[in-house]
Amino acid sequence: MPGLLVRDVDVVLTMDEASRVLRNASILVEDGVITWVGEGRPKEAADRVVEGRRMVALPGLIDTHTHLSQTIQRGLVDDVPLMKWMRVMAELSGRVSEELCYMGILLCLLEKLKNGITTTLAMAGEYGRFDEVELAAKAVEATGIRAVLACVLIDYQELPSPGVPAGSRISSPEEEVRKAEEWYRRFDGGLGGRLRVFLGPQGFPASSPELLREAAYKARELGTRVHAHVAEAEVSQILCRRRYGKSEVEMLEDVGFLGEDSILAHCVQISGDDAKIIAKYGSPVAHCPSSNLKLGNGIPPIHTLLKEGGTVTLGVDGAASNNAQDLFYEMRLASLLQKGVCRNPSILPAEKVLEMATRDAAQALGIRDIGSLKPGHRADIILIDRRAPHLIPHQRITSHLVYNARGSDVRTVIVDGRLIVHEGRFLPFDEQGFLEKFEEMMTQYLGETRVRHG
Amino acid sequence: MPGLLVRDVDVVLTMDEASRVLRNASILVEDGVITWVGEGRPKEAADRVVEGRRMVALPGLIDTHTHLSQTIQRGLVDDVPLMKWMRVMAELSGRVSEELCYMGILLCLLEKLKNGITTTLAMAGEYGRFDEVELAAKAVEATGIRAVLACVLIDYQELPSPGVPAGSRISSPEEEVRKAEEWYRRFDGGLGGRLRVFLGPQGFPASSPELLREAAYKARELGTRVHAHVAEAEVSQILCRRRYGKSEVEMLEDVGFLGEDSILAHCVQISGDDAKIIAKYGSPVAHCPSSNLKLGNGIPPIHTLLKEGGTVTLGVDGAASNNAQDLFYEMRLASLLQKGVCRNPSILPAEKVLEMATRDAAQALGIRDIGSLKPGHRADIILIDRRAPHLIPHQRITSHLVYNARGSDVRTVIVDGRLIVHEGRFLPFDEQGFLEKFEEMMTQYLGETRVRHG
Repeated sequence: MPGLLVRDVDVVLTMDEASRVLRNASILVEDGVITWVGEGRPKEAADRVVEGRRMVALPGLIDTHTHLSQTIQRGLVDDVPLMKWMRVMAELSGRVSEELCYMGILLCLLEKLKNGITTTLAMAGEYGRFDEVELAAKAVEATGIRAVLACVLIDYQELPSPGVPAGSRISSPEEEVRKAEEWYRRFDGGLGGRLRVFLGPQGFPASSPELLREAAYKARELGTRVHAHVAEAEVSQILCRRRYGKSEVEMLEDVGFLGEDSILAHCVQISGDDAKIIAKYGSPVAHCPSSNLKLGNGIPPIHTLLKEGGTVTLGVDGAASNNAQDLFYEMRLASLLQKGVCRNPSILPAEKVLEMATRDAAQALGIRDIGSLKPGHRADIILIDRRAPHLIPHQRITSHLVYNARGSDVRTVIVDGRLIVHEGRFLPFDEQGFLEKFEEMMTQYLGETRVRHG
Repeated sequence: MPGLLVRDVDVVLTMDEASRVLRNASILVEDGVITWVGEGRPKEAADRVVEGRRMVALPGLIDTHTHLSQTIQRGLVDDVPLMKWMRVMAELSGRVSEELCYMGILLCLLEKLKNGITTTLAMAGEYGRFDEVELAAKAVEATGIRAVLACVLIDYQELPSPGVPAGSRISSPEEEVRKAEEWYRRFDGGLGGRLRVFLGPQGFPASSPELLREAAYKARELGTRVHAHVAEAEVSQILCRRRYGKSEVEMLEDVGFLGEDSILAHCVQISGDDAKIIAKYGSPVAHCPSSNLKLGNGIPPIHTLLKEGGTVTLGVDGAASNNAQDLFYEMRLASLLQKGVCRNPSILPAEKVLEMATRDAAQALGIRDIGSLKPGHRADIILIDRRAPHLIPHQRITSHLVYNARGSDVRTVIVDGRLIVHEGRFLPFDEQGFLEKFEEMMTQYLGETRVRHG
């Protein structure tokens, strides 16, 4: 592959261990890998040059929890109680055709990329639609994003569902883990390493303690990771206490689920003791502040987790619960929420939040060669235009990125050395044509499902 | 003035009393006033046509609390304790030249307009810089925004300040109110009615109960309104209880400050009883969620206020505490926060939040002919491009506006019938030249003030 040079960038936030900030700097990329980064220009020439004047470069943002095809239900289940949300989502998801599901995933990835997200960890294969994993892999190829698919494993049906009474076993841990291993062997490491596969037990109560244990063991055997919903809603925490006399986190500790290789989404309902346990095992927590608020679940004790030495990363969650796929919202909100709830404006400063969305997230996913701009790392780079009224004055750029920047400020996105967004334009396929086709399909879908919509 | 026609708009959210939504509709404007709005096109022709295809039109957003020149300190006082914030802000503000102050106000108004804010209620004349009122009036003229300047009145110095010991009387209520009346007579109703003047007692403890009383009386005598900070930080609430044995709201009730014509900024620290009092008198509360969180003040009980029948509007607050000047953030955050804190996803639905930022805010300001798109109203209109991945699917546009839209989605802004932003470009003056000049001045200013900045 010919070389790519991003040159004369106003400010490069390397997000490396020393958090080096470079001025008037350049980044050279060869074969998808950063070979040089520094002030001035490298000696080597490159076939393709991206001008960085008046830009800030930083590592692509890393989203550590989402659901890809929920773009199809975006706006259709807002402002409703959680139980209704779950019921309507199950109904609506059951009626999505394979083609629409694929289009929804494409829309989600397109939106993420334009907003500067270069890596996403996505639950895939929910609502019994195992084809979502395959469709997601295809969409990762088509859009050029880097992705980890956490293949969803469910062996227990808590809520009543069409044809399945509440409280039913619907699969066995063995069957679920076998399925996940198949997916892992088929897709992990694909697309030149851009596609990874984790095991994604849905979480209690849709996953039994046995399934959670088996999934974690299998992930360790395969050398991959596990990702589950943990203590998201109050109801699951109450159920867990009633059934096992302990919190979800304590139950996860008992079954051997916790560790640096198990990423816990949400953790809204955790106690101080739970936070200590999570930090002790080093399980990263994927914090999704917009979704937690919007579904009425509450505000997780992120500051406590960090104080205990825990690792926290950020997730946008699905478009039916966030609804945006923009990690800039989550950076801003994560910081503001903890400051407000703890009545302390000094906590979660901008620098820390930006680390959570880049370097810390790379570590959480176990992908050691992303999350910082340095030689040897994969070239996942975003450029942000500083010539905007809301990013002025230019001093304190990190503050502006966290408190004022929005996905729309991202002008250029490079993933694995490939230019995906340039001057705000999405390059892999015709965006407008795609959006029009998506709209047509949505009109038909909504006609069929007869969902009330305003 | 020649007529302006906004035609063939996909969706017009009129935000009128019936919350009418029009499809494929047009809006005709003559002499700054809407003369026709409806589906299809009017019979009359117009000299200037704005195409509305693939757009959503709604009334310009109304920001009900801000500080204009704080753009100069944006990013310089982040992540620090409140007392340090106040001290550094006083220091930094004291060193701002008249020219830089004017440039800072211009930047703030430019940013607001590009984000779809067509009316702002701004505190002006703080830190003893009375020239800010005059500079603000000039900047309102230069940018074309609609503004209410709440001229700041302060008679008491609570914190130690250069040359003034803590706890000093620094002016008298009579002197302050006389000053305000002068400003009122000079500027109110200027720029063809686009500029209004309120009295802006800073609020307890920088304003004594006597000043608060006199300001409210004078405002009623003049037929204008009052605007003050109320129960923003815990410290002022504690001080008020210690000094008067009652809450700030109870003290305001005692002195006759409350009423439909007194707009209370923040109200973070209010009790359930305070909320009842505020609602009883009909004082609108300008809720500034980003600022309240970022300064560590907390989360006001907005849901309780609304349940009591109170009026709540939204404010961005100053760029030193928010830091963005984008009401889309505040709409989203206001709704999400209350859902999360009350553990109820059904409260503050998107429709209500959009009303707070338009119709309810117009009522709060006492400007009866803005906030809705209907014949006889001033033509303050914004157009939002729906052809964006994050605003799809097109169903449920109100949800998208509140939960997903950002200021950058605003393509066209019309104030008082004048085109201010079109196709994303700011028309009143050369934006890039202005931003460059601002940056130069900031570099010099920061060199002089020797503020640590990253």
